Amino acid sequence: MAEETRPYVSWELMNSFMIDVFKGYGVPEEDAKICADVLLESDRRGIESHGCNRFKPIYLDRIKNGTLLPVTKIDILKETPTTIVMDANNGMGMVAAHEMMTRLIEKAGQYGMAGGAICNSTHYGIAGYWTTMAEKAGMIGISGTNARPSVAPTFGVEPMMGTNPLTFTMPTDEEFPFNFDCATSIVQNGKIEYYERQGKPTPAGLVVTKDGGTMTDSGKILREMRKGDCALLPIGGAGEETGGYKGYGFTTIVEILSAALCGGPFMKALSGKDANGNNTMYRLGHFFFVINPDFFMGGDVFRKTAGDICRGLRASEKAPGQERIYTAGEKEWIAWQERKDKGVPVGESLQKEFTALRDELGLPYRFDFEKQ
Amino acid sequence: MAEETRPYVSWELMNSFMIDVFKGYGVPEEDAKICADVLLESDRRGIESHGCNRFKPIYLDRIKNGTLLPVTKIDILKETPTTIVMDANNGMGMVAAHEMMTRLIEKAGQYGMAGGAICNSTHYGIAGYWTTMAEKAGMIGISGTNARPSVAPTFGVEPMMGTNPLTFTMPTDEEFPFNFDCATSIVQNGKIEYYERQGKPTPAGLVVTKDGGTMTDSGKILREMRKGDCALLPIGGAGEETGGYKGYGFTTIVEILSAALCGGPFMKALSGKDANGNNTMYRLGHFFFVINPDFFMGGDVFRKTAGDICRGLRASEKAPGQERIYTAGEKEWIAWQERKDKGVPVGESLQKEFTALRDELGLPYRFDFEKQ
Repeated sequence: MAEETRPYVSWELMNSFMIDVFKGYGVPEEDAKICADVLLESDRRGIESHGCNRFKPIYLDRIKNGTLLPVTKIDILKETPTTIVMDANNGMGMVAAHEMMTRLIEKAGQYGMAGGAICNSTHYGIAGYWTTMAEKAGMIGISGTNARPSVAPTFGVEPMMGTNPLTFTMPTDEEFPFNFDCATSIVQNGKIEYYERQGKPTPAGLVVTKDGGTMTDSGKILREMRKGDCALLPIGGAGEETGGYKGYGFTTIVEILSAALCGGPFMKALSGKDANGNNTMYRLGHFFFVINPDFFMGGDVFRKTAGDICRGLRASEKAPGQERIYTAGEKEWIAWQERKDKGVPVGESLQKEFTALRDELGLPYRFDFEKQ
Repeated sequence: MAEETRPYVSWELMNSFMIDVFKGYGVPEEDAKICADVLLESDRRGIESHGCNRFKPIYLDRIKNGTLLPVTKIDILKETPTTIVMDANNGMGMVAAHEMMTRLIEKAGQYGMAGGAICNSTHYGIAGYWTTMAEKAGMIGISGTNARPSVAPTFGVEPMMGTNPLTFTMPTDEEFPFNFDCATSIVQNGKIEYYERQGKPTPAGLVVTKDGGTMTDSGKILREMRKGDCALLPIGGAGEETGGYKGYGFTTIVEILSAALCGGPFMKALSGKDANGNNTMYRLGHFFFVINPDFFMGGDVFRKTAGDICRGLRASEKAPGQERIYTAGEKEWIAWQERKDKGVPVGESLQKEFTALRDELGLPYRFDFEKQ
């Protein structure tokens, strides 16, 4: 990992600041606390694509342009002892997801299994936040969400589906859980933006162009992607020979579960634009399943087995030149160990965003990075 | 698809023959019917790696060598309104899985969600048979199983986990369901055996050798694999750049769920050999989840949405030179259309196996392929 040269902001200060800014944008205090925690949890795990970096563009700017309502009115469309369907009415997806998981964990505590779906929602942060809520309650969490179309099917070139994470978090007897939280495409847009910022090409085979080839110029990929002239490829890559149809299958599973359980829109209807190119509500769908090991052979058996499997994998023979084999969630745990006493690293563009937000709302914050 | 030159055996004759052979090997009649149907369903779907071709080596030979018990004694280790854990006592995995799914579908009919796990089991056929049982009842089926270690983790070279399918079948409003049924490794052993039979090399990047490289000589791969000197790679391939850690994550999810819910063994303990190289019981674990859309926004909404997504994907822009985009389960449906009136194609080595089994058991069958 590259040495950190950016200044840090303490977790306490950052949390307090984000809550106050969300409140300044009309989000009720209790909801603002949830949203700040979801975004900061992403930074705690080192997943910078979904943390502070998204605070302004994905949440505040959308509240401002009217495509995200700061007050979340949740309608329960259906409820049974084991299931819930919610309409988030274009409010904060994180607030609806928090309410959903709180209720599903209670249901799974009573019935062993629970499932939920949310329609008319907005970006719900890292999927792993919700599955980790289940894991903290000793249960298995599974979640996924659709998103604007950017991934092409096998043998196709058109961006049809979202990067659609299929996320599982499971308790172990270790200090950290098994936490598998990632897109079902090879990479997300955020990774290509990262390559561009580093002045690096995107590896071949991650993107498909209209002529069926690939492209490695990171800046060009981002420009063409915005026009729908190239698409991300599912895990396994183009064609069938290296298993591309398997990644395509996982992406489609998430597309179906995100829309079909809640009866919401899907694929091209999630572009966030109407026929005239104007912004529209995102109307995302999410799904959530919670499984309680106490209704199988018990939490202790589950945690010990899951831990033994992770330990066994890490101890297995490494490829020459590799020092370490990781299990899912381990790198996030390492990031937290490195950051917990320091806070969240904040680069120059974020510093400008934060001070501008502070001044815009007249908030009484002063950041360490402002001191000479 | 290559034109079929092998002779066909009618479905009725094949089914009757397999049932009688299973009975001849000590499998009770009702159980034999289930097992024959599972194996033939694989052939109906064109998945020849799991159909008639496995009848003798994976089932009959194992009954003979004592690692698969023909009479399946099922113990219920735990049962709640939504969950079941079974011990299959080294009997027929297909019989235990059939009992499991029958009960889970009933539970999901009543409670909306159900989950099960089986320990001390044996090869349960195509995972998609079990998830399709749920789909035929209008529900979503999810299943997976562990298997003998053959897949290396990211940055590793040692075969640690099985090819671990993570299978989803979901109802649609089309003639066939969305059915995603495949290994979480790029390929299975069966595919490399297929390349060898065709005299073709295995594509680079599907297998990792002890020196961290790859290998394309199909015959050599199979020989080295048996000694544990090379391993299959998870979807996404070696390293992290092309998403190999994502395939590795899916493989691990299946390894954990297959063992931790039922408290069974995992990874190296599933090699089927003891420390002295003698055959041991396989002691596989499987898991099953059933989700009933009627407890969400209803079966009609689910089927229509899932169908619309599949149709939309197939209608999307093709890569130059590609005539068709498929959705998961479509190729299996096409195989059935081609085979339903003809029967199951039987090559020379299978013909010999069948006539030898017939003669061994003194069964009164005569196959068309025997006529001059």
